[in-house]
Amino acid sequence: MEPKAILDFICRRRSVRRYQKKAIPEEILEVLMKAAMAAPSGNNVQPWEFVIIRDPKTKEALSRVHPWVYMAAEAPAAIVVLGDKSSEWWEDDCAAATENLLLAAANLGLGAVWCGIKENQAAAVRKILGIPARLEVLCIVPIGYPAESPPPHTKYRKDKVHRDTYGQKF
Amino acid sequence: MEPKAILDFICRRRSVRRYQKKAIPEEILEVLMKAAMAAPSGNNVQPWEFVIIRDPKTKEALSRVHPWVYMAAEAPAAIVVLGDKSSEWWEDDCAAATENLLLAAANLGLGAVWCGIKENQAAAVRKILGIPARLEVLCIVPIGYPAESPPPHTKYRKDKVHRDTYGQKF
Repeated sequence: MEPKAILDFICRRRSVRRYQKKAIPEEILEVLMKAAMAAPSGNNVQPWEFVIIRDPKTKEALSRVHPWVYMAAEAPAAIVVLGDKSSEWWEDDCAAATENLLLAAANLGLGAVWCGIKENQAAAVRKILGIPARLEVLCIVPIGYPAESPPPHTKYRKDKVHRDTYGQKF
Repeated sequence: MEPKAILDFICRRRSVRRYQKKAIPEEILEVLMKAAMAAPSGNNVQPWEFVIIRDPKTKEALSRVHPWVYMAAEAPAAIVVLGDKSSEWWEDDCAAATENLLLAAANLGLGAVWCGIKENQAAAVRKILGIPARLEVLCIVPIGYPAESPPPHTKYRKDKVHRDTYGQKF
């Protein structure tokens, strides 16, 4: 593929926090899951699992686990990304899967936002969803057809790229 | 975009461990960096930095920091992903940036592999590259034009997708 088409695909992903009321079709949710599970994983353990939430009461409860996940209440769906902590690479693998999911969403015309969940917030999520102890909670991704359209962009900064050793530039 | 084109783009990324001797042009490396830095980041901190290594002696040294990064010696380049640990989200953000980099690479006709670096291996990488203490080492990505071509795939498993609560399926 041409570089421009590749960067268009990747830079189309932006954090979208406002959504239309339109539901996401089942087959589109399946595309998101196929994209997520195409991520690499340490020792090919594939430590990820996902909970897709459409029940309004459950979304409402999730939206209150911390101040920055309020969008989960209004979004037609929220996807919770879980990782099996028996793999030492679970967090990196699940983060890569989340990025795949977000890229697929953006290119399907959906909007979504990655809401990270720290350990002290995870207990509430566990309780709401009945998550077993072996699984960690990486994030909540509220998702829907966008009611706002931030333009594609990269945050590329040449000074963040070093050559051969740290601090050396070309 | 159509779901098939999106999944083709994402599923094209596979772990590639054998490379041709051909060098990667400078403008292609820049595309990889632009893709990486289009990742989302917690509080928009953009905690990532990158070291692109083409010096043979430095690649050779990196290839010995653990048994699974041997490919760095023969690859025409290796990219080390660093994260500023002053952001509590550095690891997730840098993992998302790495996934973007790998997706761009695959779609540019390059092959690469994510070699995770744990804290006990990071000291060696720090010493080789002169990395300041505020930065963590997420991974090393050996990269080049592929001498092997694993077919596109997803590891999608329907049983990893739950609905509304953990364990519930549609």
